[in-house]
Order: sequence, then C-alpha cells, then structure tokens
Amino acid sequence: MEKQFKEQIIIDGLQYCNWNRSLFEDVWRGGLTAIHATVVYWENTEESFKKLEEWNKHFAENDDIICHAKSTQDILHAKKNNKVAIIFGFQNSAPIGNDIFLVEKFFSKGLRFMQLTYNNQTALAGGCFELKDSGVSRFGHAVIEEMNRLGLIIDLSHAGKQSCLDAIKSSSKPVAISHANPLFFHNSIRNIDDEVLKSLVRKDGFIGLSLYPLHLKNHGECKLEDYCEMIHKLINLIGIDHIGIGSDLCKNWSDDVVMWMRNGKWTKKTDYGESLDNSSSWPKQPTWFSKGSDIINIYKGLIKSGMKENNVNKILGYNWFNFMNQNFG
Amino acid sequence: MEKQFKEQIIIDGLQYCNWNRSLFEDVWRGGLTAIHATVVYWENTEESFKKLEEWNKHFAENDDIICHAKSTQDILHAKKNNKVAIIFGFQNSAPIGNDIFLVEKFFSKGLRFMQLTYNNQTALAGGCFELKDSGVSRFGHAVIEEMNRLGLIIDLSHAGKQSCLDAIKSSSKPVAISHANPLFFHNSIRNIDDEVLKSLVRKDGFIGLSLYPLHLKNHGECKLEDYCEMIHKLINLIGIDHIGIGSDLCKNWSDDVVMWMRNGKWTKKTDYGESLDNSSSWPKQPTWFSKGSDIINIYKGLIKSGMKENNVNKILGYNWFNFMNQNFG
Repeated sequence: MEKQFKEQIIIDGLQYCNWNRSLFEDVWRGGLTAIHATVVYWENTEESFKKLEEWNKHFAENDDIICHAKSTQDILHAKKNNKVAIIFGFQNSAPIGNDIFLVEKFFSKGLRFMQLTYNNQTALAGGCFELKDSGVSRFGHAVIEEMNRLGLIIDLSHAGKQSCLDAIKSSSKPVAISHANPLFFHNSIRNIDDEVLKSLVRKDGFIGLSLYPLHLKNHGECKLEDYCEMIHKLINLIGIDHIGIGSDLCKNWSDDVVMWMRNGKWTKKTDYGESLDNSSSWPKQPTWFSKGSDIINIYKGLIKSGMKENNVNKILGYNWFNFMNQNFG
Repeated sequence: MEKQFKEQIIIDGLQYCNWNRSLFEDVWRGGLTAIHATVVYWENTEESFKKLEEWNKHFAENDDIICHAKSTQDILHAKKNNKVAIIFGFQNSAPIGNDIFLVEKFFSKGLRFMQLTYNNQTALAGGCFELKDSGVSRFGHAVIEEMNRLGLIIDLSHAGKQSCLDAIKSSSKPVAISHANPLFFHNSIRNIDDEVLKSLVRKDGFIGLSLYPLHLKNHGECKLEDYCEMIHKLINLIGIDHIGIGSDLCKNWSDDVVMWMRNGKWTKKTDYGESLDNSSSWPKQPTWFSKGSDIINIYKGLIKSGMKENNVNKILGYNWFNFMNQNFG
C-alpha cells in the first residue's frame, strides 16, 4: 500500500469496472479504503437483482482483499482488516421502474447509491441529455422521500439542471453528484454549473470529481496541474468539505460497452453520447490516472500544488466518509 | 342486437372491464362491433405479457361471441361472423420500461394502442397530473417512430398538454386521444383544451369521447342532452370525422381497483386522482350509460338532437374504423 495512505481513508466515489482479481489487487495495493461501484445502467428489475447477486462471486473469490460495505462501520471494519470496501450503486432508476416498493428491496440487498436518471428522462426526473428537463416528477418526489427514509444516497450525476435543483430542495438529506466536474473547468453536458454547485452545498450536498476524459479540460491530455487547480478553484467556490473524488473510471470493458452505456435499449439508431467526434471507442484516460491506484497521483499533485496534507486527505476520502456517515444513518 | 346497429360499425374506443361472460353478452347483444380493451396500467413487462395471455382464456371460453382483432380486416370479419372484436391497448408505457425492442414484441402479441403516460411522467413523456410536463423525451420520440413503423396507435389520453402537442408533431401517423372530453364541456384535468384538439385534427388525429363520470358536466348527473350538445359543439370546432366514443367504462371491479388505478405502485401515500372529494369508490355512471350496450342511448340522443343518421353512425363507429384503418396499415 502507498505509505501516504496507510492511516488514511481513501475513497473513490464512483468506478464502473469489469472487475477481476487483477483490478481488485490494483486498488488494494493502491491503498483504496472504499469504492462506490456501479452495478447497472439500463438494466430492468430482474437483471439488476441478478447483477447484485453476481457480486457474491467476487466477494467469495476475493475475500482476502475486498468486502461488501453497507455502512460506514463496514468501511472502518474493512480498513482494519486490510480489505477494500465495495459500496453498491445504480447509475439509473430503471431497476425500480414505477415501483416505489422496489427501493427498499434493493436497499436490503446493499444498494447505497441510486441515480434518478442516466442521461435520459425517467419516471422520476429529467436527464442531462434531454432538450427539456422535467425536473423531479410526482414519482420522483415519492422515491426521494423513500430513499431518505432508508438511507439510500440520491445521486444526481447525469441528471438535468432543473432535476438537480428540484432534488436538492426535495431531499431531507444531503444529496450527491458522485462523478462530474465543475462546468467552469470544462464545458461538458455532464459537468455542473455554479448555481447547482452552490445549491448542492447549501444543503450539505457533495460532489465527487471525475477523471472521465470527456469531463476534463483537454480530455485525455488534461494535465494533473490543471486538475489540481480546478480543485483549488472549487474549494474557493463551495468550501472544502463537500468535495471528493468520483473517478468514473471504466476498466476492462470492450468498446461495445461504451456504446451500450450510451444507447442502452432506448434507441434503434446510434447515439454517441458525450463523444464530440462520434467515436465508438472508450476515450483515452490521462496518463496520470489510468487505473484505480493512480489516485496517489492526485494526492501528490495536490501536495505539490501547496495544499496542506490534512486538506488533501479530506478530498481523497474523509469528506466522502463523513458524507456517507450522514446519509447511511 | 339493436336493429339500428345491424348494418353499422359500432366501436367503443376504450373500456376497462373485469370481463366475464355476462359483460361480453351485454356488448354482443348491444350490437358493438369492436371494443378497444385496456389490458394494463401500471404493470411491468412480465405482468403485461401475462395479462395479454389471460385473454386467450376469454377468447376460448367466449368463442361464439368475441374474437381478437389485430386489423380492420379482423374487425370486418368479426362483424360478418356476428362476434365482438376485441382490440388490445395499454394505458401506460410502463410495460416497455426503457426498452424500445419491447414495442415490437407487444405488437406481435396483438397490441394496437399504447399510451405514452398514465397521469404520471414516464421515460417517454409527461403525465396530465404532473406539475411540470416534460413534453416528449428522447426515448419518447424514438418509441413514437417505432410505433409509427409498426402501426401501433399512439394514445395521448392521460398525457400532459405539452406532451400531447409534442407527440402530435412528432408522429408521422395520426394519433388518438382514445378517452377524454373537451375541456369546454367540463373542467377536468383529463379533458382536452381547444388548442390540443385543433392540433390533433390538423394532423388527422382522433378523440374518443368519454363517459367516465369525472369527465362529464355534473358527473354522474350529466344529462344525455348535454352530452349530445357537447358533440355538436365539438363538431363545430374540429369537424365530424375525427370524433368517436371512448367510453372509459369500467365494469365489475371492486373499489380497490379504482384506488389501484390512481396509486399503482408509485406512492406509499394515498392519491385520489381525479376525485374532488377524496372518494375511494368508483364514481356513479349516468343512468343512460351504465353498461356497454347503452351506447344505443347515445345513438338515440344524437338522432333526437337533430343529427342525421349518417353522421350519428360516423360518431358511433365509422370514424374510429377509418382512423384505425389508416393506422394499422
């Protein structure tokens, strides 16, 4: 494990990987304490229960280095036992369809994050790719209340602006944007403008900063220094306590998976999502963040940028931990 | 059979009944040629396929008086064989979830009408009960194109105003509002304003007029004369060729079904839908339309109101037939 991370809580607030032993070993060796792992995007109820079940195999086969976390206690327990804690999340509300009673069923299987939307409109809210964002619907408000009751974190990544503002207002608990960057850093449909960022933190909400190339200034050519400068600017805007890393790292997937993420089952044509040049390949990661363990480079970059170690540790994990602690209840 | 209907095409453009022999006999004796029968509201994919399957039992047990219609040819064939043709419809898009490929699968099982929404927002569009109507979403436009391709009628009953306008514009085939009344007749959230009615018919769309008490002036006390006067006014507004009956007749259901229609699985609280006095019972039908065969009373009322028999027959079924003929392709 990186020596800097020995005594620290290091959390990646979102990864979507095709997990195998080698990927688990990388994040374990890299000193990650916990990872919020995406389980599904477009899958329906049955498929989503199945995908959750599939994790049992991972836990059984990698019992020495990973474990399932349903609470911050579980995360601390994992740290003590030198294992990486895996937290389940859905990047869409497709799994619950129009059924509020499914929220608790998925929660009972360990789900701790759920996005209201993934790019497109759902029965709950509007997506960031819609021309017109509905905001949070009747069903959306009901589900937010249910998620609050259970301690299931409302994730607004991939939601439209109005839906973000509505959900922040509607939720009685702080909400997260688990993986995105400020719009001032890079003009992407997925990045977040100042108004939403300020509303978010006014209610103790949280943003996990993304390393997905299309959310970065100069995409895969983004410099670590620029990324660190963005963090400093963001701290000036919203304070330090509401910021973490949500790398959106996608590993070990073939190119058809990035196209499936964009097209799901919703269109018979081809949608290229965030790609500006109609590429159907995964975008190239920055050299300084090509795997989960590269989070050490962000640590080093922030230290080099003049940030105090205590504050770097907040960004690298303590803030996420405190936020989760408030939410999981 | 009513003698007036012997040589005519009589179509009820929407009923939601808990069908049994006695109800089939009533509409058969009453001279109905075809009925668009609602199969589901809130049901998911699997439940909806099951509900469609359940109709096989009805067809087998009542083979002497009903049959399944997938085309206008089937309707004519049923008429010739003295059977009531049953056309399948969904009052929601819940059955397809976020999967465009399910549209054709349901179509192949005989589905010929599908609403984009039922009161609430879906992934496709906004519902009439939403505070903010999204209009038609990205997925909604894709599904409309697919429904057009197949010959599956887009039904905008229970949609919000913007969603109606968007869908009328987006669809390359005429669309239907299978069961509602003009807003000028009665101020209900489900009734349709002049702007939408005019847009609808400009693109050869269709409205089936409702007999559901909450869509009627004075509800269950509505007079037949007032209903017929509404039809005359509507003809003045949009011409005669785009108007039929879509009674929204709900028979043989216990009171918990009307509450299920309102609440589905979307809320843990109680929603009273269109009821103004928080009633959890079925509203009382007008005495002159308490069963399917009472469509003869509308015939008589229109004749009495001075309408020519030829025009009455258009309203009672020929218009629906022509509209379906255009759509089913």
